Amino acid sequence: MSKLREALFAPASVAIVGQSNDAAKTAGRPLKFLQQMGYAGRIYPINPGRDSVLGQRAWPSLAALPEAPDHAYIVTPTDAAIDAVAECGKLGVKVATVLSDGFTEAGEKGDQRVARLREICAATGIRVVGPSSLGIVDLRTRAMLTANAAFDEKELPAGRIFAASHSGSMIGSLLSRGKARGIGFAGLVSVGNEVDLSLGEICESTLDDPGIDGYMLFLETMRNAEALRRFAIAAYQRGKPIIAYKLGRSEAARELAVSHTGALAGEDDVADAFLADCGIARVTTLDGLIEGLPLLMRVPVRTSRRGTVGVITTTGGGATMVVDPLSVQGVAITQPSADTLARFATAGIDVKPARIVDVTLAGARYDVMKAALDILTTAPEYDLILPVIGSSARFHPELAVKPIVDCAGAAKPLAACLVPDAPAALAMLSEAGVPCFRTPEACADAVAAALRRRAPRAPSPSWPGSSRPSTSSMQSMRQDVDARHKAGHDETRGRMLDELDAGTLMERYGIPRVPAVVVDAGITHAPALPFPYPVVVKALSAEIAHKTEAGGVVLNVADGDALLKAIKQIRANVAQAMPNTSVPRVLVQPMIKGIGEALIGYRVDPAAGPLVMVAAGGILTEIYRDRALRLAPVDLATAKEMIAEVRGFAALAGFRGRPKGDLGALADAVVAMSRLAGEPSVSEAEINPVIVRTDGVVAVDALVKLV
Amino acid sequence: MSKLREALFAPASVAIVGQSNDAAKTAGRPLKFLQQMGYAGRIYPINPGRDSVLGQRAWPSLAALPEAPDHAYIVTPTDAAIDAVAECGKLGVKVATVLSDGFTEAGEKGDQRVARLREICAATGIRVVGPSSLGIVDLRTRAMLTANAAFDEKELPAGRIFAASHSGSMIGSLLSRGKARGIGFAGLVSVGNEVDLSLGEICESTLDDPGIDGYMLFLETMRNAEALRRFAIAAYQRGKPIIAYKLGRSEAARELAVSHTGALAGEDDVADAFLADCGIARVTTLDGLIEGLPLLMRVPVRTSRRGTVGVITTTGGGATMVVDPLSVQGVAITQPSADTLARFATAGIDVKPARIVDVTLAGARYDVMKAALDILTTAPEYDLILPVIGSSARFHPELAVKPIVDCAGAAKPLAACLVPDAPAALAMLSEAGVPCFRTPEACADAVAAALRRRAPRAPSPSWPGSSRPSTSSMQSMRQDVDARHKAGHDETRGRMLDELDAGTLMERYGIPRVPAVVVDAGITHAPALPFPYPVVVKALSAEIAHKTEAGGVVLNVADGDALLKAIKQIRANVAQAMPNTSVPRVLVQPMIKGIGEALIGYRVDPAAGPLVMVAAGGILTEIYRDRALRLAPVDLATAKEMIAEVRGFAALAGFRGRPKGDLGALADAVVAMSRLAGEPSVSEAEINPVIVRTDGVVAVDALVKLV
Repeated sequence: MSKLREALFAPASVAIVGQSNDAAKTAGRPLKFLQQMGYAGRIYPINPGRDSVLGQRAWPSLAALPEAPDHAYIVTPTDAAIDAVAECGKLGVKVATVLSDGFTEAGEKGDQRVARLREICAATGIRVVGPSSLGIVDLRTRAMLTANAAFDEKELPAGRIFAASHSGSMIGSLLSRGKARGIGFAGLVSVGNEVDLSLGEICESTLDDPGIDGYMLFLETMRNAEALRRFAIAAYQRGKPIIAYKLGRSEAARELAVSHTGALAGEDDVADAFLADCGIARVTTLDGLIEGLPLLMRVPVRTSRRGTVGVITTTGGGATMVVDPLSVQGVAITQPSADTLARFATAGIDVKPARIVDVTLAGARYDVMKAALDILTTAPEYDLILPVIGSSARFHPELAVKPIVDCAGAAKPLAACLVPDAPAALAMLSEAGVPCFRTPEACADAVAAALRRRAPRAPSPSWPGSSRPSTSSMQSMRQDVDARHKAGHDETRGRMLDELDAGTLMERYGIPRVPAVVVDAGITHAPALPFPYPVVVKALSAEIAHKTEAGGVVLNVADGDALLKAIKQIRANVAQAMPNTSVPRVLVQPMIKGIGEALIGYRVDPAAGPLVMVAAGGILTEIYRDRALRLAPVDLATAKEMIAEVRGFAALAGFRGRPKGDLGALADAVVAMSRLAGEPSVSEAEINPVIVRTDGVVAVDALVKLV
Repeated sequence: MSKLREALFAPASVAIVGQSNDAAKTAGRPLKFLQQMGYAGRIYPINPGRDSVLGQRAWPSLAALPEAPDHAYIVTPTDAAIDAVAECGKLGVKVATVLSDGFTEAGEKGDQRVARLREICAATGIRVVGPSSLGIVDLRTRAMLTANAAFDEKELPAGRIFAASHSGSMIGSLLSRGKARGIGFAGLVSVGNEVDLSLGEICESTLDDPGIDGYMLFLETMRNAEALRRFAIAAYQRGKPIIAYKLGRSEAARELAVSHTGALAGEDDVADAFLADCGIARVTTLDGLIEGLPLLMRVPVRTSRRGTVGVITTTGGGATMVVDPLSVQGVAITQPSADTLARFATAGIDVKPARIVDVTLAGARYDVMKAALDILTTAPEYDLILPVIGSSARFHPELAVKPIVDCAGAAKPLAACLVPDAPAALAMLSEAGVPCFRTPEACADAVAAALRRRAPRAPSPSWPGSSRPSTSSMQSMRQDVDARHKAGHDETRGRMLDELDAGTLMERYGIPRVPAVVVDAGITHAPALPFPYPVVVKALSAEIAHKTEAGGVVLNVADGDALLKAIKQIRANVAQAMPNTSVPRVLVQPMIKGIGEALIGYRVDPAAGPLVMVAAGGILTEIYRDRALRLAPVDLATAKEMIAEVRGFAALAGFRGRPKGDLGALADAVVAMSRLAGEPSVSEAEINPVIVRTDGVVAVDALVKLV
């Protein structure tokens, strides 16, 4: 066992700094719970004002103890907590878990406190959980260092799941709800503000624990995402699945996460992409989180996105309650193949060729259900078999539930949903290791999450292609830019490449672009162009990020005279809109048409890392937030999957007899853009629009921001 | 008590036709359950093959009985069931509930059986529940006429809710889940295929039952929608709220409903609009259905769509789990007003100005929570106060749950969500009449549904405006159309008005249209036009429903010569696309521009009745299914609300500094279109596009289909 894991979860001795004599108070609970659970190690309550607390000897200070305890739980007010951690560090305490608040969520003063804590960690080697940690608990060693009121009971059977939560209250919710469903925990941790040990690091420290089969996470932010990713990859390698609930689907929730944890929550689809890339199954219901892990343990990670479920039921209405949300989430519920239907007929089971196998008419009978399950669990068309059992499950699980139990060892994963309240049947299924669900919503949530799950990617992925431009060419471009770059530019926004350089870079990465000629804005005679009129004329300047808004674009320029006029107009417009910006050059391009537009974006997210995004072009896709995101780089299959996720691209896929756009070429462009992940000097890039034609795509405008 | 209600729910005598002696069989259950529950009326099991069943005298036939029972439950095979109903009718049995299947879901043969049942009803006056009814139950009179296995228990405490379900299995689910949550039922019915008594009629018959406070519906289709509406209006008048779960959000579920019940499910947003118009609160989770009624009983129907919730919590993370789905559903969770914050300060409660009132730091204490609730329940800015209680709720409900109980009588509605598993606290809240929820998802589902609920509309609404065109003018137009209408036209598609007549009708209803000139397609000289070129030329024929697809539209026609050429081109295109259709006339209109497009539609839905729809124009809104629907007619406020619901109209509402479209004029047009509800000869109409300008809207194309 690692030293860290031992100090966190199996300490031989613990101190409670600030332990109160009143067990009803928050600061009174830790000792009470340790006593109640029968922790066998040495306990040192620290309370300078009393000789004893809760019937046990109290010590005046950490320094007065006969030994340096392995783990200290600090439940004092804020400032005393920092002193306590410092003293712990000095004495050689290995881990301090801090309940006190007033750190990352408390503005500038809080930041100073965080800095002080980190100094102590660096200077003494002590590791800190929290602050604002409601505790860390191991139900096997009974090291219950928590002030969470839901741990106030003696009967807390240990299980094989480890739970980690940004929210302190939620460890009590997971514990108690798990208990009500017969799901036990090996340990739980409220990670608080993670100023030292992050959620990912704490979980990672438990990976070699043979008593842990899987992980349940409650996330409020994407803070310390890299540690989370490292843990997720290592967990995958050990065959230990991770299920996560993450707050922040709404703007309101993201705003609350900031005020609550002091960390930015980020956009929800970024979190979605990040978790998916880590192989973490994200659920969106509390019951799905509680009940989902057994399913993840049974369903292998998949390589294609759309999973196929075979539903069998004794209640058409009840089964449809599961089918409905599953379908909305894109899971395919399909009717049995002709072969499978023939096997049903041979077995004398009357099954209509429909999306679900409804055996209601045959009645809820063991023999029918068992024979039907034997057929479905060996039918090659399904990834998962899902029996949905009706009223008989309540008092007669021997009829339709027992056959599921007897198929628990089938080669194909099974999961069961019970429509009535049927605790005995749920217990019977759980005991047999069959993933089972109390509500249709939790069932659909967990099934969809399990079928979406993929293997995590390594943190430093290899290039999907071989056409990576040499770093030196990028460096020379950057030097050019630096040379052109004016002093006094707003450094916080990053440095922009102008459209020509941006387009050149994109082209080097393999994205075709529209031909372009640079024209001196001072010309008095129209130059000969290598392409016919009409053309578009644009201001060429890295300082004008929004050319259209500044009046820097003229479309449909018909001839040479009009070109000169357009240049004049652009200079006048920009002079008015941005008085300090000149337009020494313009870019002239042919007007090109396609059958639609797309937008491809790239950026380095502070939490999730390099991201590539594709959306349909135009204002509506922005309004509908219709975009697909992945961590970059991506391979061609993933790029195609992204394009399939963007609903607006249906318009370019032959919708109502319209011409089809070359979405394959668009996927190539997405792959190319995603390779910027290997270009550390680029922080952001966008091609908007990419014109999609029936044959190929062409970048019309490009924007690149350097670090 | 009405005779019907008495026969359904309080029969003095019942017959079980086809009662088996084997209580484990479906046909054995009804008598077992009646005996088990201690039904006090006279029971007549009918089984021609036995002298006794389950220890009770069996009768050979209905005719052999000493009296005509009030209610017969028929559990025989299909054909015997029809004979049994016929005999019941002959003998004067008031109601027969039929379990047997093989009717509406069984194709042509089933339809014949349905017709036979209806003949029997008409001839004898008997009323039928079902077929495919798993039963009808009154838990007070203990008339348990059901074969649902979940009723196999002695302890079924009666409550004050009536449940009706299209799914037979679900009555067992509602009963058992209700029991587990301390929610009892007065009665439950599985309405089956509703060939005679519909769900709405059965519920309506119970409206004067003083023991029923509200209704819980599980719907699979919109069959018999008018009866449902009548019931809903009457229930509203009696102050008895209705909560409904309806299957069919996905295509897969709608397809299953058809195979399962033989009835078309219809589009989900139509069901949504219908239920909302009836004042029925629709939820989307099973737990929301089970737990939601107490909340509806407390929250009055509202007149504006956006409700405001004040959230107070002892767990920031847990509360955000409720805020997140509420916000996604458009419910506003807002921070307390300055006044309310000042009251918190005066009371010595430290509350940050944030979206939720988080008293975690103050600790879960009775005095803090009670004082905070006293302030919030009298704060005018909120429609509902929602305490979300963390871990203390599990073992110490006296801390943060008891104050909620003590505020149960507050003027403002309260609802509570408990984050840990806390059955005792739930029971305490339920007993005090405080609506409370076991999961964040059920809580958000029910709260959003309650805040969306409106008063139902009367079935024959009065006209919202006074500009209704005279019926005679419509009649004369129709005669014209009839005269022009060719023999041999496909009657099933309904008769179309041509674009000119359609536009004229729309204009009469008050929708401005673009000027138009009808030109004989045989002309050889271009006519003088009352508007300048460029113009658009369109084939004018009621037979060409899709002009663009048939090549019947030429845009941007620059002058007279081009006009003649365009007419020639259109005739050639149409002759090729539709060889049997001639184009004697064309319509010439000016090319007009706006800043965006909309689509307004009207149709008479077979289930829901007249509907009006508005969507943003273009292909993407079709792909995104971004539209707002209401039952027609609508008033101006409702039309504005519809426009606000269509996300795509954000593009016309000043998005990113763009010009604003006249969405007020668009709302006027929606109101005008919705008045077609008073025009029984119109089955469908569409204006696509309506050009939205900065000042006003103009219809460019119109389509009207007559009945």
